[in-house]
Amino acid sequence: MRPVYLDNNATTHVDVDVLQAMLPFFTDQFGNASSMHDIGTAAGVVMKAARRQLQALVGAKFDHEIIFTSGGTESDNTAILSGLDVMPDRTEIVTSAVEHPAVLSLCAHLEKTRGVKVHRIPVDHHGRLDLNAYGKTLTPRVAIVSIMWANNETGTIFPVAQLAEMAKRVGALFHTDAVQAVGRLPMDLKATAIDMLSLSSHKLHGPKGIGALYVRRGVPFSSLIKGGHQERDRRAGTENTPGIVGLGKAAELALGCMDDETTRVKLLRDRLEEGLLERIPEAFVTGDPLARLPNTANIAFDSIDGEAIQSLLNRDGIACSSGSACTSGFLERSHVLEAMSIRRARGAVRFSFSRYNCEEDVDRVFEVLPGIVEKLRERFPKSSKRAKC
Amino acid sequence: MRPVYLDNNATTHVDVDVLQAMLPFFTDQFGNASSMHDIGTAAGVVMKAARRQLQALVGAKFDHEIIFTSGGTESDNTAILSGLDVMPDRTEIVTSAVEHPAVLSLCAHLEKTRGVKVHRIPVDHHGRLDLNAYGKTLTPRVAIVSIMWANNETGTIFPVAQLAEMAKRVGALFHTDAVQAVGRLPMDLKATAIDMLSLSSHKLHGPKGIGALYVRRGVPFSSLIKGGHQERDRRAGTENTPGIVGLGKAAELALGCMDDETTRVKLLRDRLEEGLLERIPEAFVTGDPLARLPNTANIAFDSIDGEAIQSLLNRDGIACSSGSACTSGFLERSHVLEAMSIRRARGAVRFSFSRYNCEEDVDRVFEVLPGIVEKLRERFPKSSKRAKC
Ligand SMILES: Cc1ncc(COP(=O)(O)O)c(C=O)c1O
Ligand SMILES: Cc1ncc(COP(=O)(O)O)c(C=O)c1O
Repeated sequence: MRPVYLDNNATTHVDVDVLQAMLPFFTDQFGNASSMHDIGTAAGVVMKAARRQLQALVGAKFDHEIIFTSGGTESDNTAILSGLDVMPDRTEIVTSAVEHPAVLSLCAHLEKTRGVKVHRIPVDHHGRLDLNAYGKTLTPRVAIVSIMWANNETGTIFPVAQLAEMAKRVGALFHTDAVQAVGRLPMDLKATAIDMLSLSSHKLHGPKGIGALYVRRGVPFSSLIKGGHQERDRRAGTENTPGIVGLGKAAELALGCMDDETTRVKLLRDRLEEGLLERIPEAFVTGDPLARLPNTANIAFDSIDGEAIQSLLNRDGIACSSGSACTSGFLERSHVLEAMSIRRARGAVRFSFSRYNCEEDVDRVFEVLPGIVEKLRERFPKSSKRAKC
Repeated sequence: MRPVYLDNNATTHVDVDVLQAMLPFFTDQFGNASSMHDIGTAAGVVMKAARRQLQALVGAKFDHEIIFTSGGTESDNTAILSGLDVMPDRTEIVTSAVEHPAVLSLCAHLEKTRGVKVHRIPVDHHGRLDLNAYGKTLTPRVAIVSIMWANNETGTIFPVAQLAEMAKRVGALFHTDAVQAVGRLPMDLKATAIDMLSLSSHKLHGPKGIGALYVRRGVPFSSLIKGGHQERDRRAGTENTPGIVGLGKAAELALGCMDDETTRVKLLRDRLEEGLLERIPEAFVTGDPLARLPNTANIAFDSIDGEAIQSLLNRDGIACSSGSACTSGFLERSHVLEAMSIRRARGAVRFSFSRYNCEEDVDRVFEVLPGIVEKLRERFPKSSKRAKC
């Protein structure tokens, strides 16, 4: 049976057209863009095209506002460290309690080693940012605000345009981790006050190992990785031409089908949610009911482990996520659901769609998930065991 | 006519077998290694295999001494910053005057912003390190030494095993940028005192956008990019599985043909050098005559611009490098040749071979280069113009 992949917030497969676009740059047009011969300069030309494709997707004013990086994590780290560097008189960071580790780990490190003060704005039960608390932390001591566009676990969308305006009023820089939002939501950065934005290629059917950081023209910037003059001195290292071409193509495809596909994916997602709530007692959808990514369904089930559900779904050929990541063999409780005070968080499973999903994928979940939940609830009536992975 | 590519120190094309090995990981086995379902865990397995292939190539004792990064520049930056971080009582760096910008730019930045003292050990006319000066700078104030294994412009090989021993005596960490050496010279890191080593995939017929940092077990380490727990908490960010698989395969291929190909490539290179010195008056080979990479020929020609030669060779379908990089439209004089006090440096052209070059490539250079040099010398008898690019 064809496996059902409903974990597109973790990563997506590379679109065949994207791969096709990349292939020549491995073997024939493999030049180093810094080289002065034809094989090298050809690489410069295609990178320019890819920058334009990304510019269009995020609505940037200039293509050179796009800096290619190795992925979302590097972009996030670069933005925050740059913010602190270019604002030496300011020593505070404002972020949220539900950011990705790419932001939160760095902030914790800066707090510990550099004495930076980090404000982590709380969220409510639906994962919505506490705007009141946010407003209060904004002072001229804040160097940079980093708040995600959309949350990877629940899909909750933050009002980043408004948050950026507020940050501007105290002269702080505003960065947004838009790794889950780019390609899924329409964007027009030039109409906002957002200074920096992170994106990652492998979340939008592009290849892994490539991403970008948007830096608005005129925003002071300090590079993370130093060396050659690549990316206008903003990111050193030989350019990953195939990756850049792939990301460009992925951006073009995402933009081209944004409206239609968003609608179709949202219908699938809604059908999944409604169908599961009908079929399974004591289940509920987490995240902001009004502002959520169209592709993400995070569903909590009372009194069972999300990991157990996920693992049984996996046996039935359905890939999804339990909301917690497993690394080096140990499980971490989801800090996102904890921040939302969802006590039954352990039972949460995330289904995340892409334009490659179809009705049958939803049907397959309907076929097997109700039985799995029932079985687990019978077997562990009041399970408190932590799953191993 | 088939273009002749003699710029393999700038970058190499991806070997077809490497590309073949990568392909499934774009589209079918595209999982995120942190995911707990089968599509994810499969990625973990192949990364382990790639780590072993690299371990074998560099002679590391343990596969987990290999950390995957986005390339040579990131590896260099990570090593040096880590060295300073884990040695908070030491504030000096020792490096050479002929390192790649990935080391030198970072050192200059640290000097300016963090008050780190940087010692840049000079080289002689043949590019050989001044061992006496090196010995004198080694004191317990030195946190980390970073000296390249082989120079990218001249191919000069430094005695890194010996340099590492000397650094150990004062308790300093020893890092080597081996981007040009890995895959071209046999290595057995476990038999040396080298603590960290940088390598880059695209210099050995692997894909761009991936590299590695070797960190000897037990060496204290501090990560550059913070976030998820990937790479045992030493490099955050979703793993670039196709890139990692490609680098692993490239390492395996390089190791498999190391002896034979090194000999064959060296013969080609020697034939090129001898043939050019015979055919062109006032030309000489730069770099250490005794310890040089087998694939690199850097040849200086009196009283003409290397850039002009390179550009005319390009018109004739021969790709090589003029020893200076062109970025953002301006030329930088080679700091390597300047450090070697080669006044006639402007006339230097670098030909760098790989196992894909053949006799005919050398013949093509013989056919056109003598005429180019003659023409340029006639046209600009005492040229002092700087070339534009
Ligand atoms: C919201 C968010 N930010 C950052 C990242 C990190 O991106 P990458 O894995 O490409 O480094 C991810 C995904 O892993 C994410 O979901
Ligand atoms: C000696 C040396 N170090 C570092 C680098 C940087 O490697 P990368 O371009 O993969 O970042 C290069 C090549 O560009 C190099 O030749």
